[in-house]
Amino acid sequence: MKVVVLVSGGMDSVTALYHAADEHEVVAGLSFDYGSKHNHKELPLAAWHCEQLGLLHQVVPLSFVDDLFESDLLKSGGEIPEGHYEAENMKQTVVPFRNGIMMAIAAGFAESIKAGGLVIAAHSGDHAIYPDCREDFMKPMAEAITAGTYADVKVLRPFIDQRKEDIVSRGSELGIDFSQTWSCYKGVELHCGKCGTCVERKEAFEIAGVEDPTVYLE
Amino acid sequence: MKVVVLVSGGMDSVTALYHAADEHEVVAGLSFDYGSKHNHKELPLAAWHCEQLGLLHQVVPLSFVDDLFESDLLKSGGEIPEGHYEAENMKQTVVPFRNGIMMAIAAGFAESIKAGGLVIAAHSGDHAIYPDCREDFMKPMAEAITAGTYADVKVLRPFIDQRKEDIVSRGSELGIDFSQTWSCYKGVELHCGKCGTCVERKEAFEIAGVEDPTVYLE
Repeated sequence: MKVVVLVSGGMDSVTALYHAADEHEVVAGLSFDYGSKHNHKELPLAAWHCEQLGLLHQVVPLSFVDDLFESDLLKSGGEIPEGHYEAENMKQTVVPFRNGIMMAIAAGFAESIKAGGLVIAAHSGDHAIYPDCREDFMKPMAEAITAGTYADVKVLRPFIDQRKEDIVSRGSELGIDFSQTWSCYKGVELHCGKCGTCVERKEAFEIAGVEDPTVYLE
Repeated sequence: MKVVVLVSGGMDSVTALYHAADEHEVVAGLSFDYGSKHNHKELPLAAWHCEQLGLLHQVVPLSFVDDLFESDLLKSGGEIPEGHYEAENMKQTVVPFRNGIMMAIAAGFAESIKAGGLVIAAHSGDHAIYPDCREDFMKPMAEAITAGTYADVKVLRPFIDQRKEDIVSRGSELGIDFSQTWSCYKGVELHCGKCGTCVERKEAFEIAGVEDPTVYLE
């Protein structure tokens, strides 16, 4: 099947990109520049991996998100909280309906370039704090995309029954250079090692028993 | 309920705006500049009606649609076909998953400005050629929006059981100046009177028995 892959430059979506290239015909990697503090770190890495695989990479500019939406993940928002992902204060980093917006745009793009599917790296550990990562969002959203497109575009979630550490194992198997992926929400020079997504990144490598090539600030 | 209204500047969505202002607390009218041939005619009218009602009006720039998507409705596409809406060639004017994209963005915006609902002017006559106007798209999309937002944002479709002529009647009752609405896909100085949406506009006024204030080229 011809597919479009949503690829942010993070470890999950980069693994989804290589995995999809292994299983399908990837017609493009699609990234979104929505004004987060770490977009400038992620996007060049998403582009780099597409280039490694000889794939078209498109960046969709969504400046209105930073202008109109409320979230500490955005440049217009407050400081990124530290601590484990499940902590209540990580809620501040939710960008309202971000997955819905990205999936809707990817669906229209897929229909335009005659792809029959879109791939998103959602996994079983996606957090209770993100309502647009949950199954009760994903299921109707996928239905709406199939019903709302001529090509009956399918939403593929290859990692939906896996945990983040399983994605690390799969990525390692696919030979992915994880040093060329970005997680940290702070978007400074190195991964901070303290925000929710850094804590989770460290844990995933540790549990998977794969060496973590990331250089953390601490 | 606090609501955001999707308002293009066309007669249906402008009527939805006044209708919503009558029934709810409208916190903003939301328009999308996605590179159609007629956006430059519609958007100032959407702004004008919001101003009449003393409402905030936001225009979301979606330049990527014209850059990446295929449709004759777009500036990058071919000529607008003439004839009745149901004709096969009107399919060329479909912008892939446009409603899905606009609704997803409106959902994120609604959540950000603490509105509990979004209003869309979908009606029973929305065309078989537009898959993202159909009930089997709208129903799961609305479910995804409610499930994917903290505020359980509701999708309100006040005209879903009505025909376009009923919307004309309701608009007339609300005192709307329909001369300040735009339908024609061609986006030239006057309504062409020949494209699918002009034909449908004329018919709606005629069936409703409301005087059509539109000046058509022919």
